[in-house]
Amino acid sequence: MTLKKLAIVGVGLIGGSVALAARQRGFAARVVGADHDRVALDQALAGGLVDEACLDPAEAVASAEVVVFCAPVDRIAALVLAAAPHCAPGALLTDTGSTKGAIVAEVESGLPAGLLFAGSHPLAGSEKKGPLHARADLFADRLVIVTRTSRTPAEAVERATALWAALGARVRVMSPEEHDRSLALTSHLPQLAASALAGVLPAELFGLAATGFRDTTRLAGSNADMWVPIFAQNRAAVLAALERFEEQLACFRRALEADDRAAVARLMGEGKRARDALST
Amino acid sequence: MTLKKLAIVGVGLIGGSVALAARQRGFAARVVGADHDRVALDQALAGGLVDEACLDPAEAVASAEVVVFCAPVDRIAALVLAAAPHCAPGALLTDTGSTKGAIVAEVESGLPAGLLFAGSHPLAGSEKKGPLHARADLFADRLVIVTRTSRTPAEAVERATALWAALGARVRVMSPEEHDRSLALTSHLPQLAASALAGVLPAELFGLAATGFRDTTRLAGSNADMWVPIFAQNRAAVLAALERFEEQLACFRRALEADDRAAVARLMGEGKRARDALST
Repeated sequence: MTLKKLAIVGVGLIGGSVALAARQRGFAARVVGADHDRVALDQALAGGLVDEACLDPAEAVASAEVVVFCAPVDRIAALVLAAAPHCAPGALLTDTGSTKGAIVAEVESGLPAGLLFAGSHPLAGSEKKGPLHARADLFADRLVIVTRTSRTPAEAVERATALWAALGARVRVMSPEEHDRSLALTSHLPQLAASALAGVLPAELFGLAATGFRDTTRLAGSNADMWVPIFAQNRAAVLAALERFEEQLACFRRALEADDRAAVARLMGEGKRARDALST
Repeated sequence: MTLKKLAIVGVGLIGGSVALAARQRGFAARVVGADHDRVALDQALAGGLVDEACLDPAEAVASAEVVVFCAPVDRIAALVLAAAPHCAPGALLTDTGSTKGAIVAEVESGLPAGLLFAGSHPLAGSEKKGPLHARADLFADRLVIVTRTSRTPAEAVERATALWAALGARVRVMSPEEHDRSLALTSHLPQLAASALAGVLPAELFGLAATGFRDTTRLAGSNADMWVPIFAQNRAAVLAALERFEEQLACFRRALEADDRAAVARLMGEGKRARDALST
């Protein structure tokens, strides 16, 4: 499938990489980017990520067959609904937010008839931000979750799946709720644990932090600007995941307090079984 | 300083690397290794890590100017005290255990007169085990902590420092108690957090664990055999570190429960400041 026009609203690291991948793989004849940040827009244009750049999303989305919204999770739904009246009939709209429940519910409640929407979340990213760090292979062999609800048209799911497959990704379809519950454990909880662990290290011990500490806390370097809205939108699932983690830590604490070495070994074994099942 | 004879009791990854580094850097004319594991011993000899190999530590340590004990933390003190009567007068004995308080106290209480002992802990290692994975550069530019108590002779600290410096490491001297309190936070707590985090991931979510989860839980792949004795020997300090971590997680939980985004941002900021202060 080659589109005549692909529109990307938000040309940061993710949006820029969608643009780059689409151009390099011949997925769209023309890629148009919109961003409220003029610097990012200029960089995307100068870097050859997009053919055309506009400050106004309404202009960018006009006549595009597919529109991808790449913005902080607390801005996506409003951006989609504001751009929707300017989209061509039959256009597929999708997003790349790290939470899905709130975004999909708000969009599906307000989307005008004649447009298709399915939420997406590519499990790919980088500590780096902005279009200068965009990579055509960011989605290659990575997993993208596409959401389906009782209100999502089958065609929206099919076309969103085809979009990500064309950019090199594997796709899994699930409900927004299953996505949010799953990511609370696989992504949001590790972020929170890493931040908390780094936060208890006193400055005088920085020099003693070796590889193990550095790996375990790497996520603590992430930006609060990006994460606070993610935690806020997925509060219930994050709290449930945190509760499970706190219970597991309490099991460790009770085993240590009792000097129950068999129990400590068993708890470490539970972690090792899971970790060894993942590829490095 | 070139020794006539360096003895290594325990020729696994760490002991094998001490042997290899000492030979390659010309620190000792002859390196003799002892191990109760005949396979490891044969590998160390065949791999050129040691010049001579014996099953009996008493034989290996005879006439050595320096003896390094590399064994699980719960076996080190007994190994040192059993070998001590066979050591040459004036010999420096040291170890490489990840805990120091219990080991140093037991050794310093029982060491015969005429021998020197200072505890050591090289902050270097690998997930890999055994002499086949030994590396001559394992300690290059890494930090080694050497311990000093009121009973440690100044000469023992000086010679242990010279040993590690000769193998390429930087050395910091501190008390066993300061070492154990510090490592509880920088090493033992991250191990426990990684094990607990991996332990709460249900099998059906393994496929959704991306880079963030993998980095944060890498330590969960460590061996319980090695870690259970470390936790047991450093129980009080690990429990204190765990308590601080649990308090920080509880702060996150309360901030999320109250949907207090400023508090979540502040807690993430505390982690980011610490993490950004470490080099990657």
